Order: sequence, then C-alpha cells, then structure tokens
Amino acid sequence: MFVPTVAGKRFLTNQLRKSPQFTRMLTSHAVIFSSHGEPKDVLKTHTYEIDENNIKPNEIVLKTLGAPVNPSDINQVQGVYPSQPEKTTQLGTSEPSAVGGNEGLFEIIKIGSDVKGFQVGDWAIPTSVNFGTWRSHALCEEGKMMKVPNPEQSKQAGKKQGLTINQGATLSVNPLTAYLMLTHYVKLTPGKDWFIQNGGNSAVGKFASQIGKLLGIHSISVVRDRPEIEELKKELKEVCGATQVITEEQNNSKDFGPQVKQWVKETGGEIKLALNCVGGKSSAGVARKLAPNGLMLTYGGMSFQPVTLPTSLHIFKNVTSAGFWVTELLKSDPNLKRETVDKIVEWYTSGELLDAPSKENQWGDQDLAQVFIDAVANSKSGKQLVKF
Amino acid sequence: MFVPTVAGKRFLTNQLRKSPQFTRMLTSHAVIFSSHGEPKDVLKTHTYEIDENNIKPNEIVLKTLGAPVNPSDINQVQGVYPSQPEKTTQLGTSEPSAVGGNEGLFEIIKIGSDVKGFQVGDWAIPTSVNFGTWRSHALCEEGKMMKVPNPEQSKQAGKKQGLTINQGATLSVNPLTAYLMLTHYVKLTPGKDWFIQNGGNSAVGKFASQIGKLLGIHSISVVRDRPEIEELKKELKEVCGATQVITEEQNNSKDFGPQVKQWVKETGGEIKLALNCVGGKSSAGVARKLAPNGLMLTYGGMSFQPVTLPTSLHIFKNVTSAGFWVTELLKSDPNLKRETVDKIVEWYTSGELLDAPSKENQWGDQDLAQVFIDAVANSKSGKQLVKF
Repeated sequence: MFVPTVAGKRFLTNQLRKSPQFTRMLTSHAVIFSSHGEPKDVLKTHTYEIDENNIKPNEIVLKTLGAPVNPSDINQVQGVYPSQPEKTTQLGTSEPSAVGGNEGLFEIIKIGSDVKGFQVGDWAIPTSVNFGTWRSHALCEEGKMMKVPNPEQSKQAGKKQGLTINQGATLSVNPLTAYLMLTHYVKLTPGKDWFIQNGGNSAVGKFASQIGKLLGIHSISVVRDRPEIEELKKELKEVCGATQVITEEQNNSKDFGPQVKQWVKETGGEIKLALNCVGGKSSAGVARKLAPNGLMLTYGGMSFQPVTLPTSLHIFKNVTSAGFWVTELLKSDPNLKRETVDKIVEWYTSGELLDAPSKENQWGDQDLAQVFIDAVANSKSGKQLVKF
Repeated sequence: MFVPTVAGKRFLTNQLRKSPQFTRMLTSHAVIFSSHGEPKDVLKTHTYEIDENNIKPNEIVLKTLGAPVNPSDINQVQGVYPSQPEKTTQLGTSEPSAVGGNEGLFEIIKIGSDVKGFQVGDWAIPTSVNFGTWRSHALCEEGKMMKVPNPEQSKQAGKKQGLTINQGATLSVNPLTAYLMLTHYVKLTPGKDWFIQNGGNSAVGKFASQIGKLLGIHSISVVRDRPEIEELKKELKEVCGATQVITEEQNNSKDFGPQVKQWVKETGGEIKLALNCVGGKSSAGVARKLAPNGLMLTYGGMSFQPVTLPTSLHIFKNVTSAGFWVTELLKSDPNLKRETVDKIVEWYTSGELLDAPSKENQWGDQDLAQVFIDAVANSKSGKQLVKF
C-alpha cells in the first residue's frame, strides 16, 4: 500500500503507526505534475512512503535504475501529447497528479507472496506506457512490469554481455519503433529488398539501419548535407550498417533517381518501405523511390512540415502513406511487445546491436524534480538519462 | 478478320477478292495515334474493313453508339498516362498504332457461331481499358465486351427506363470510381456513418453524393466558394443528395470544426472515409475531419498540389492515405466490374441515379479524327460525347 508522507499523512492509520514495520518504510521520490505547462513550471517532487512489509500478494516493489527523458515525455507534461497518464491522488498528493516518464529500468527489491513472474534482483521494464517512471521507487502489481535479464542472468545464460542500464531504460521506444516498422507491415525479402528512410542520423534511424542489416534488409539513409558528410556516411555505413547514405539534395534530385534504381537492381529486390520522420519535401523524396504498392510509414515530423506525397504516387503507383505510433500498436497487442523486447535484448546481449548513448545524470541528494527539469533543458543537446 | 483498306491492301488475299462476300465489307473509321503528342497533332483517321461474313466463331462485330473524351484519354494520347494501349499494325496501319479512347457503348451487329454471351442487338461496354473506343465499328472476341441491357430489354424487364447512350458510354469510369471508393475499402454503417469529399461539384463528386444517399451514407461535399454558392449548395443537396455542403474556406477553418463534429454526432456515426481529388491544403482539410483510423482515398489532383497530410493525423489518429485508380483495381478483379456495372445500371434504369450530362457531338460525314480533336479542345467547357 502507498503511505503518503506529505499531503496525505491522514492516510497513515493508527494500526500502521503501532506496527513494528513502521520503521521499514521506503521513501519514494517522484516527479509529478498536476497541471500541464513547461516542465520547469509544473514538475514537482512528491515523496511518499511504500510500506514494503505490507504489500499485496500480487504486488512488487521496485527500485529505479534509470529513466530517460523522451520528447514524448516532455510533450506529455506540456499537455500536447495525445497519450496521457491518469491524474489521481493515490500517492497522497493534495491535487490529482501523475508521475512523469514512460520508459525506465527497474530492479525488483520485494515481491508479494503470490508473485510468479519475478524474484528479488530481477530487472524489469514497464509493460505499458504511462507508468510514471520518473521516481526512485515504485509499488505495483506484477503484471505492470515485464522482466528483462539482469547482467548476472545474461552471464549465466552464456551471453556475451549483460544489458547496460541505458540499454534497459531506453528499450521500449526507439529500438521497438525501428524493429516494428521494419517487420510488422511489409514483407521484406532478406538479401533482396530495401527500405529507405530520412532522418538516417536520428536515434531511430540508426537502430533501423542496424536492425535492417541484422535482418538482411538493404537500406538507404537520407541525411542532411553538412561539412563532415563523408565522416557521417562512413559511420552510418560501417558502424550502423546502412547500405547507402545519401543527402537530402540527392533525395530530392530527379537526376539521382537512376543511381538509386541501379543499386536496387543489383540486389534483384525492390524498395518496399519508406520510413519518414521529417515530412515536407523529404517525405515526397523518399516516397518517390518506393516500388509500386510500396508503403511509407511516418513516425515523426522533424521539419514541422506536413507529410507530402505527389498525387501520382497514390493513384498510379498505389503507394500508401500510414502512421506509426509504437504506443498505440503495443497497447492493442502486449504479446508483440514481449516478443519484440526479447529480440532486442538478444541482440544487445550478443553484442550485435549498439544502443544510442545518452547523457547520464546521476541523482544523489538533489531535488529529483530539479534533476529532471535540468535534463529536459539539456535534451536539445542529446538524449538524457537519469540514473538512480 | 481485319482487312485494312489503306496501307495494308497487301493483306487482302486473292481468295477474298474472289469471294461473293467481298462487297459486304464493313468500313470502320478509327481515330489512331502512332506517336504521342497533342491530340490535334497526332490523332489521325484510319479506315479499315471488317469482313463481317468471315469472323471467327468467338468474335463479335460492334457498331459504336457513343464514346466520350475523358481526361485520361487525352493524357494517354499525350503519353503522360501510365496505362497505355499496345501499338500494333493489326489494323493495317503502316506504323504501329493504337486506337484512342477507353470508354464507349456498342451495339452488337454480328456474332460468331460459338458466341454465347451476346445476341445481335445487344448493347455492350468494354470489359477492360485500352479497347480503343474512338472508332465507328470494331471486331473483337466476345470476352472483350460486357453486356448491358438495351432499352428494349430494360422495358421488358419492367424497368422504369432504359439506359441512354450517354449513361452507357460513360458507365465505366466516373460512376464506378464513386461506387467503388464508397464500398470497397471502409465499412460505412448506413444511417450513421459519413464520408467527406472535396471536388464535391465534380462528376465523380456528384456521383459519390448520389450513391452515398442511395446507400444511406451521409456526406459532406467541399466546394470552392463562388457568387452563386447558395444555388450550388441547393443543387448538390436536393438533386445530388449531399447531406452537407461546405466551402473550401470552411474546410480549412479550425472554427468550423465543431459544426462538423455536431453534424456527425447527431447521427451517432463517424467520418470514416475522405475522398480527395484536389490535393494541397484541401486534402489536409478533409483528412483532419476523419475519425481515428480513417482512410483518405486520392483519385485526382485538380489543384496540381501534392497530397498533404498533417503528421499528427498519421501518427496519433492512425489516418491512412491511399490512392484509388479504377483501372488498376478492376484489372485485377473483372468480377468486381461486372457486379459494379450491374449496380449502376440498376440505379439508372430505376431512375434513382442521374448521369452527368455530356456535350454531344454527332459524327456524320466529317473526318472522325477531326471530330475527336474538336471534342478534346472543347473538353475544358464540359465532358464531350461523340455519338455515331
């Protein structure tokens, strides 16, 4: 049960006050918001106590190992994201509030008497979004968590390496997005078929190139031109496994089309899938390279331009344009998340897949909300991970 | 068999010259093109003779009743349309050539000994595109034609009225496009659900409103604002059965959204389908009004702007954007054409569906190519039908 320490002291029953376990309460620091706005204005630390000796038979107690700041987490706090956690007073807040954060890695530190899926020491990630991962500890039903191997377990299973905290804490969004876009919609024939993507240097883009290579699917990554373009091409090809890397100028150039056709012809396949996280003319460019009946999946809009598709591609090439939102897809299919997480974990622990590095922020004795507020502010310079 | 009269005289065998049927040859005037360009530059009349007493057992001889000029016919001649008839010398042309035109209504005037599906006097339309309908007569295998009732047959079947030549000759493109877009992709619940379309005053748009009403589906037609907007709204609602008619300004206005939501709420349904023949911001406007998981079908691009879709509609509302091309759909499913033609004919002969009037051009003793060249030139002022 939750025992609030601040606003909700009235919930502390006399019975509990008298119990010998009273001194064993675990204090959780949670970053909450009760209204929407800029994170620096609305995020606050709320502390509450978890009575770890009085948990229900199906409950588990978690210690957070790490939780990242995703753009969607920020948008959620701002109130501009369609998926929102329910605001409640369950944690003893005076106003209905929600805990921020959707991704995170947790260690199980206590299990209820009927818990079947976990042992103390196991690692876990939330089964669904809106768990509220920006907190030091949590109490929940075991079904809310999905086990992933801790390093000791990976070692015992003969794996090359264990998951890092960064890998575990950032498993659910970017790698799953890349993997599911490549596998869930279009049948791509290994060794032959291709996908094309813009934002080839984004986190999802790098995962897509890597996973494409692991699956035997060729890829063309479109990136913005820049002074160090040759170094970037080299990195995306040699480290991330992109088959070809082209610039946005080439993506939008008619003259470059025959080169792309030549690459594809050499493998005897087709470009059946385009991944778009940019929009505007970049989306038109990648869509134009699709084979007849191809699919473009849009999962982001970094240019803030709408998705743009030449009419003739729709009518005469039967190109379809659809959206991808990992949250919605997995909400309707929890088994798919389990399978996909297992696949990614397998590649991480075999050393075949590289994660996207995060900037680490260690929580010590600072105000936890301030740690996340700073991490939000620093997000522009790269993905931030708060370690506990 | 084809017996060319001009360039191909060498094909006239001695045997035929001696036969008593030689004088019974039927002269067909065909509008052909051997290279692509503007119709006035490349369309030519080619005459050839059909030896109607020496047809194969599975062949039929046709007299053309009417053939329209569609935009796609013009684009085909210009060489900018992806579906093209094969150019051959079968009709005795000196260069490989194709006969223009894809839609038309024909009367069967002679049948081969094994023909099962037709009798002399029956009416028919081509089973597929690229038949080459711009000619006065034709000889083909019976499978190339699909029977439709002639007025006498409709009368005998107790129908209110027979097909007109305009209805029969323009059956395959616009009414089928409207019907198939409304029925082939999304399940719309009669009495509850809605579709929205731009180009509400176009030929397909008017068919869609009418067919929507016949199927019990509510519709919102978007039209450009104009001085006589109230008359147009009245016509589209009262004659064509559009449930609501709005302007492009309203389509693009956020303030108008609640009004649309209110209309839809009153029927307890959803806007599950958007039909787009305009593109640009008009396509974004109709797509925005779709319910979650809605589909936008693009079948034209009158604004010459690409299809534009706000990124969030793809990602967070799971809106899909696809193309519709009646040619490609029916190529892969001939039974679907039969069923759909029957449905449209049923509505025409019951008097429930109004056709789009065409400007009629009667062919007499003029050069047939010139008749079609003039019709192409006049197409800007309305759809042209050549009657024979």
